[in-house]
Amino acid sequence: MNIDMIEAAYGRIKGAVRRTPLLSSPFLDEIAGRRVLVKPECLQHTGSFKYRGAMSALSALEPDTRARGVIAFSSGNHAQGVALAARQHGTSAVIIMPSDAPRVKIDNTRALGGEVVLYDRASEDRDAIGARLAGERGLTLIKPFDEPEVIAGQGTCGLEIAEQAAELGITRAEMLVCCGGGGFASGIALALEAHAPEIRVRPVEPEGFDDVVRSLASGQRERNAQMSGGLCDAIVTPTPGEITLPILQRLCASGIVVTEDEALRAMALAFERLRVVAEPGGAVALAAALFHGQALEGDTVIATISGGNVDRDVFMRALQIAG
Amino acid sequence: MNIDMIEAAYGRIKGAVRRTPLLSSPFLDEIAGRRVLVKPECLQHTGSFKYRGAMSALSALEPDTRARGVIAFSSGNHAQGVALAARQHGTSAVIIMPSDAPRVKIDNTRALGGEVVLYDRASEDRDAIGARLAGERGLTLIKPFDEPEVIAGQGTCGLEIAEQAAELGITRAEMLVCCGGGGFASGIALALEAHAPEIRVRPVEPEGFDDVVRSLASGQRERNAQMSGGLCDAIVTPTPGEITLPILQRLCASGIVVTEDEALRAMALAFERLRVVAEPGGAVALAAALFHGQALEGDTVIATISGGNVDRDVFMRALQIAG
Repeated sequence: MNIDMIEAAYGRIKGAVRRTPLLSSPFLDEIAGRRVLVKPECLQHTGSFKYRGAMSALSALEPDTRARGVIAFSSGNHAQGVALAARQHGTSAVIIMPSDAPRVKIDNTRALGGEVVLYDRASEDRDAIGARLAGERGLTLIKPFDEPEVIAGQGTCGLEIAEQAAELGITRAEMLVCCGGGGFASGIALALEAHAPEIRVRPVEPEGFDDVVRSLASGQRERNAQMSGGLCDAIVTPTPGEITLPILQRLCASGIVVTEDEALRAMALAFERLRVVAEPGGAVALAAALFHGQALEGDTVIATISGGNVDRDVFMRALQIAG
Repeated sequence: MNIDMIEAAYGRIKGAVRRTPLLSSPFLDEIAGRRVLVKPECLQHTGSFKYRGAMSALSALEPDTRARGVIAFSSGNHAQGVALAARQHGTSAVIIMPSDAPRVKIDNTRALGGEVVLYDRASEDRDAIGARLAGERGLTLIKPFDEPEVIAGQGTCGLEIAEQAAELGITRAEMLVCCGGGGFASGIALALEAHAPEIRVRPVEPEGFDDVVRSLASGQRERNAQMSGGLCDAIVTPTPGEITLPILQRLCASGIVVTEDEALRAMALAFERLRVVAEPGGAVALAAALFHGQALEGDTVIATISGGNVDRDVFMRALQIAG
C-alpha cells in the first residue's frame, strides 16, 4: 500500500470522479478561531467519498473477473458507490443489505443498478449468503475499507486536497477526516505524506464509536461496545482494519471524538454557511474543527465532509438546533 | 458590453471567485427525462453568483475611486457580495437596507464588513439617503445588475459553464438561468455566444414576477404588478434592465415561469440528490428543468442554482413537501 497505488488509481478514475471544491466561510473561521477549509465529498457522485474507492477497485479488476460481477455488504454509502461503479463498468453488482435498512437506501441502490439481496439480521448469516452467491456466480467481493485498491481510491481525495491546499499557499495544517474503518483517513494520510507532508491527519469519530481513536491511543486494536444505535451510521464499524490501522498508526496524530449534538450543530452550520448537505457521520470532522479547537494546533484546519445521504427528518432535527 | 469585458473580468477575479463544479444525478435525469447538469452558485463565496459581479465591479474601479468606498442598495445577496468584495479590496462599503430586512441578512452584511445604513420603507427615500451619502463621501454606486462590469462578472460563470460542458463533450443544450433583472442571464448568454454558441439561454422566473419572460414575449419592457410577497425574494425586480434587456432579446429563447411550489420541490430534490442548499429564487431554473420538460428541446439541459441563502423555516417547508 503506497503512493504509487493512489496515483495509479487516480489515473484510472480521474475522468469519472468529481473533483470536489475546497469550501470556506469567514463565519466558520470566526467560530473556529482559525482558518477552516472544507472538502465536501457529499458533492461526490452517490453523495459520498465511497464512490472513489468503488471506482478504483472495479477499475483495477481484470476484465474477465470484472465481467462476472461484484458483490458487497453494505446498508449505505458503500452500496451506492459499488452499484454505480459497476454499472459504469458495464457489469453487475450484488449488494447484500439487511432487510431493515432504510427503504430509501434500498431503493437508491436498486435504482443505481444494484441487485439487492435482503437478509434478516436476526435469523440469517449474511457472510454465508454472500459466500454462496459469490461461489455460484464467480463474484468478486469489494470490501468497504480494508482493501488496498479501495484505500487507493479514497486516497485520490487526498491528492486533490494537497493540490488545492498548495493553490492557496497552505503547506501546514491539521487535516480532520471522518473515520469509520479508516479507509478514507489512511488513503488521505498516504497521499499527504507524499505531497503535503506537513499536513497531518487527525481521525474524527462520534462518541460511542471511537474504536480508531482508542486504538491509536492504546497501540492495539480496540472494538466498539455497540454496532448500531447512533445517528452517525455511515461511519460505524466494529474495529479498525488490519491494513488501515498500521497506516494510521504510522501517519496520524491523535484522534478526536465529538458528540452527536456537535455533529448536528456542524450540519446546521454547513447548511447555513457552506450551503451543503452533510449527514451526521459526515459532519464529525467539521464538528471537531469548530468545537474542539483546543485539541488542534496551528492556524489552518482542513475538514472532510465525508457524505450527505441523510433522511429529511434527521436533517430537520439538525436545523432545529440553534447554531 | 461584449465578450472581451467578460474575459477581462475573469482575468481580474479568477483567483478570488470559486470555480463551482457542474453537478448531476441519475435520479434527476430520470425525473427530467433528459440529462440535467447543475451549476451550483450557492457554493460561491457569500452563497450566490452576486459575488462575481461585485468583485468584477470593484476590481474595475480606479484605485483612487475605489479607495473612497462604494455604496449599494440591497437587502440580500448583492449586499453580501459587495460587502465581501469591498473588504477584500481593502475599502469600505455602505449598504442601504430596509429596516425590516431579515435580521440575519443585516447581521451577515455587517459581519462581512459592510457599513449598514437602515431606512424606513414607509417614511424615507432610500435614493435620497444614498445620494446624500455618496455625495458627502465620494462613494461609487455599485448597481445590482444594470451595469456593464457587474454583467461581465456574472458572465464569468458562463465561461466556466462553456468550459465544463466542453469537458463533458456537450456542445448543444438548453441553459436555464434564474432571472431577476437579467444580469446573470445576459452575462451567461454573452459568454456562451462566444464559447458555446449552441448552448442557448432560457431565463426562468417565478410566477407573479415574470417581467423578463413577458418582456421577451411582447418585445417591450414589462413591469411586475407587485414587488414583494413571494418566497423568491432573491430574484425579484420591478422590470428588466436597460442594458440587460436588449442582450436577452438578442441572445435568449423564450423564458419559462415556474410556481413557488415547483421551486420548493426543486429545493427538496437539490437537497436529496445533489446535497446542496438552494434558496427558492435560486431553485427556479432547476424547477423548470425538472417539471417543465415539455417547454424544452434536446437531450441535455443545464440549470443554474443562483444562490443558497435561505432561512431555516423556509428550507424545512421545502423538505416537508413530498419530492
